Amino acid sequence: MIDLMKTPLSGIVPPLVTPLVDNETVDVPSLERLIEHLIAGGVHGLFVLGTTGEEQSLSFSVREQMIRESCRINNGRLPILVCITETSIVEAVNLANIAKECGADGLVSAPPYYFATGQPELAQFYEELVPQLPLPVFLYNMPSHVKVNFAPETVARLAKMKQVVGLKDSSANGVYFQSVMYEARKVNPDFMMFCGPEEMTGECVMMGANGGVNGGANMFPELYVAMYNAAKEKDVEKLVELQSIIMQISRTIYTIGRHGSSYLKGLKCACQQLGVIDDDFVASPFYKFDKPERDKVTIALAKLNMEHGKLKL
Amino acid sequence: MIDLMKTPLSGIVPPLVTPLVDNETVDVPSLERLIEHLIAGGVHGLFVLGTTGEEQSLSFSVREQMIRESCRINNGRLPILVCITETSIVEAVNLANIAKECGADGLVSAPPYYFATGQPELAQFYEELVPQLPLPVFLYNMPSHVKVNFAPETVARLAKMKQVVGLKDSSANGVYFQSVMYEARKVNPDFMMFCGPEEMTGECVMMGANGGVNGGANMFPELYVAMYNAAKEKDVEKLVELQSIIMQISRTIYTIGRHGSSYLKGLKCACQQLGVIDDDFVASPFYKFDKPERDKVTIALAKLNMEHGKLKL
Amino acid sequence: MIDLMKTPLSGIVPPLVTPLVDNETVDVPSLERLIEHLIAGGVHGLFVLGTTGEEQSLSFSVREQMIRESCRINNGRLPILVCITETSIVEAVNLANIAKECGADGLVSAPPYYFATGQPELAQFYEELVPQLPLPVFLYNMPSHVKVNFAPETVARLAKMKQVVGLKDSSANGVYFQSVMYEARKVNPDFMMFCGPEEMTGECVMMGANGGVNGGANMFPELYVAMYNAAKEKDVEKLVELQSIIMQISRTIYTIGRHGSSYLKGLKCACQQLGVIDDDFVASPFYKFDKPERDKVTIALAKLNMEHGKLKL
Amino acid sequence: MIDLMKTPLSGIVPPLVTPLVDNETVDVPSLERLIEHLIAGGVHGLFVLGTTGEEQSLSFSVREQMIRESCRINNGRLPILVCITETSIVEAVNLANIAKECGADGLVSAPPYYFATGQPELAQFYEELVPQLPLPVFLYNMPSHVKVNFAPETVARLAKMKQVVGLKDSSANGVYFQSVMYEARKVNPDFMMFCGPEEMTGECVMMGANGGVNGGANMFPELYVAMYNAAKEKDVEKLVELQSIIMQISRTIYTIGRHGSSYLKGLKCACQQLGVIDDDFVASPFYKFDKPERDKVTIALAKLNMEHGKLKL
Repeated sequence: MIDLMKTPLSGIVPPLVTPLVDNETVDVPSLERLIEHLIAGGVHGLFVLGTTGEEQSLSFSVREQMIRESCRINNGRLPILVCITETSIVEAVNLANIAKECGADGLVSAPPYYFATGQPELAQFYEELVPQLPLPVFLYNMPSHVKVNFAPETVARLAKMKQVVGLKDSSANGVYFQSVMYEARKVNPDFMMFCGPEEMTGECVMMGANGGVNGGANMFPELYVAMYNAAKEKDVEKLVELQSIIMQISRTIYTIGRHGSSYLKGLKCACQQLGVIDDDFVASPFYKFDKPERDKVTIALAKLNMEHGKLKL
Repeated sequence: MIDLMKTPLSGIVPPLVTPLVDNETVDVPSLERLIEHLIAGGVHGLFVLGTTGEEQSLSFSVREQMIRESCRINNGRLPILVCITETSIVEAVNLANIAKECGADGLVSAPPYYFATGQPELAQFYEELVPQLPLPVFLYNMPSHVKVNFAPETVARLAKMKQVVGLKDSSANGVYFQSVMYEARKVNPDFMMFCGPEEMTGECVMMGANGGVNGGANMFPELYVAMYNAAKEKDVEKLVELQSIIMQISRTIYTIGRHGSSYLKGLKCACQQLGVIDDDFVASPFYKFDKPERDKVTIALAKLNMEHGKLKL
Repeated sequence: MIDLMKTPLSGIVPPLVTPLVDNETVDVPSLERLIEHLIAGGVHGLFVLGTTGEEQSLSFSVREQMIRESCRINNGRLPILVCITETSIVEAVNLANIAKECGADGLVSAPPYYFATGQPELAQFYEELVPQLPLPVFLYNMPSHVKVNFAPETVARLAKMKQVVGLKDSSANGVYFQSVMYEARKVNPDFMMFCGPEEMTGECVMMGANGGVNGGANMFPELYVAMYNAAKEKDVEKLVELQSIIMQISRTIYTIGRHGSSYLKGLKCACQQLGVIDDDFVASPFYKFDKPERDKVTIALAKLNMEHGKLKL
Repeated sequence: MIDLMKTPLSGIVPPLVTPLVDNETVDVPSLERLIEHLIAGGVHGLFVLGTTGEEQSLSFSVREQMIRESCRINNGRLPILVCITETSIVEAVNLANIAKECGADGLVSAPPYYFATGQPELAQFYEELVPQLPLPVFLYNMPSHVKVNFAPETVARLAKMKQVVGLKDSSANGVYFQSVMYEARKVNPDFMMFCGPEEMTGECVMMGANGGVNGGANMFPELYVAMYNAAKEKDVEKLVELQSIIMQISRTIYTIGRHGSSYLKGLKCACQQLGVIDDDFVASPFYKFDKPERDKVTIALAKLNMEHGKLKL
């Protein structure tokens, strides 16, 4: 275990897809394979039960199973962050206590996502929640799903709590990212900034972010680690070269379906086709791709493989 | 118990506020007083754990307590509907089974509210969920909180399932309400239509809706029952007269705060001041009004009382 | 000419479709036929250059032509309202002066629709604009196109200006409509309220609104006039009967295309097929229906004709 | 004049604020001072009548005056782009012809902003508009004001027209920016990408963008040119250092007011206080800052000056 209040975390922290047998059962052998795949690929941490991990679609029993099994498999090799996003403050604390008990290193929390809070309400909520949590916590900005942004001023206010160690931003808004980084680090120079979307992680890291919580790393961890390293070393040419592969993945694997679920279904389907997980069962209210979409994933993967080899860079 | 697949429900079915001691405890004596107040006021059914009941902010244990205690107190006197809106299909079914076991008559379900579904995904979700439910179910349209509308075509598709007996619409969109009523009743002429916002329930009932799920009935059940009766009897003059009182309530009690939470906080604070519940504790992430807002509620109630008597019409 | 500050207007005031030869030319013979059709159908006023009239897609020259020709053809038989919605206050005043010069009776103005104003900015804008206008003005609430709502408090503030005689609401939000009517009439009991969407005009009139600005009246003026009369006379049964025809029109003619433009394209195509206008040219950035969609309009009209006769009720 | 279809444009192309005496009059002496200030500051082009230039709030006469005077003053020293965004295709062509006649080098066009188009309608609109334009054109993505995004697929489709030479993106969405750059450059490797928000221009240029259309350059052209140069030269350390000044400007000058107009009012007020323009009159529906806000601008500028000198870097 690392103490995130003292040792900052940097690098690629993939949001694990949740391998499922059905809506009530984690596919543990696939989870083992996935975690070994990620560790072998050089990632710097693990993020369990994020949006990519379908937290909200999972029952509490499955959420608990994911936390327990992930911590057990990882066995202290990498820092583990657990998402405790919940509409009920009581259940959020319950999840946090399970995470602590299992040996997780940190928590991640997006705002309550049914009622939309005003900014003062949002700040007050976290000022109530955080002291009840047994671990350091990252704020999680995810306005497309949550309806509410953490305003930069709110982040700065919350960053005054030592236990609030960073923010993961999935808004894709570059101005927002820069604004939060600027305001929060005035309060705490070590405030950690992680970028969700892999399509803009490289540039964010060059500008000072700590790393990326990139779903694509479930498929190709080496690629995203290489991207992080290039950015970290300010090797812009290398970064731009890797970026074109990352964009090819984004524009082929993640844009197949018709709905907002394209990213999740495409990613999970590709993980299955790559042998990382056995089945790409997606929890309700989503459903895995049918044959025509699966075929497009196959073609996209074949093209990636042909053009870029095994993406072990 | 009534069989909602055979006997349609009509009238005022208030969405009960949830009387709380704190985030983990239902205030049972207040719940008893509230239910007696509603039954004495002539309402036609009870709706537990709706948005007004703060379902999403409550722990599972508190949700279960609300279901059990409400059914116990009601003791079969009125039909009871229980809201099972959840992002996890498994937990939705769990809540439904508790409701059935406690003797509830029907369920109410809004779409999953973290991931936004496309319409085919939404239909497929309900085609998976509904057969697992032990009771008839109302769809619950709540786009401001859920991000997703039930398209009229989707409602028509789902209305083909006998177990889907109606829809409660809280969109406030009059064109949407008419469109759903028109399309769904082509499929099932008995499809029940309930209007959430009390400000437009009267007109909807005149046009053929079954009734209203009106939060204001927690305060003044007689008023909303009188409004329903006037609409039902096509007494337009009486309706317009009552409407002006309903609008006065809406424009004074529900518009005090600065955020989207004004309605809930104002309603709960007024219920406390009227003696219906002991405390207006609001579950996190909201917090009950402070003194300046409470004083405005007091003044608004005094003005209502002065101008319209005890609102026992 | 009527003085709208003294004589309230009530009834059906259709938003005229703009018959076009191309993007630069009004089809004047069709406009003549349209206006005669509407007057013969018993409507109570004419509304030129509204959203249904594609104001924003028209050049200034075409807008002026529409104002001049409509006033000339009408020749004082009905009150004429002209929409002056513009992002530039100077051009809005220019349009208003043309309207006045041509003999129009009133103006209609939606908020500037490029920059989104806050409510105080919006109020200030109208306090600057209105005194420059040579005619009484209706506010026009159209949030889907304009991004900004007139808050009920803002309407109440603006209703203090004698020249602001009413509001046309196209939000379809029933709570909003009731709230504005309640607040504005506390300031000015004669404040006129018009409902845009025909699907909810009947109920609004019963509750006290002055009438409807209903696009469908371009096709079937008698139907909407009959709906208005039934609502005005509080004949709920008649109203509900007519409502089912109005809903059939809405759900067949207006829902054919894939985009937000379905209503406009469907309406204009139906007007052409009914012989009201010669061509259903739609100004850029929209384009009239192709054959498959045209055929659906034909079938919908045939079904309406078969089931309800000529819709001259 | 440069031929933008042959010679790509790169660098800082400031969107000029429009110096106004009132809603109907350009302040020409201030415009002269502004343009000399920008040219002296080393910017690479001029962008007239953008959102920062309040195009939509200006009368046609003022728009024409701005085009004429800007071209006259510039006198061929820098490439000039003119924004022709309009809801009427006819008026857009009219503006384009004026721009051509005055000697502008290129056009910029955001989608029609009253009616929201679907993507096929949007593509069709540009396929109709572009051939009527006398100059090369940049697409302008501005979803917050226009309601509609150019989907990456739509940009790729339009990039097939030789006359469509690039896109200016003001969405602030980093994933979108990368996606458009990736898709459009597969069609045309010279497709120019400009970033609107200055807070993320540096990183975009490092990743391959051509430059920035940064409002802040009206105040401090040297700063933004230095940022561009650092990014162009892949000098990440220098860039990060300049970025902190850019963020200080953004978080102090642009965040003073309460509404979406804060950026425009703050920028224009600062330009006035810096002596770049004589008055910061803002066209209706906005209004320049009052004393309390002006004082905050004064303090922010003093702090910038104290900490960073004259920002001539």
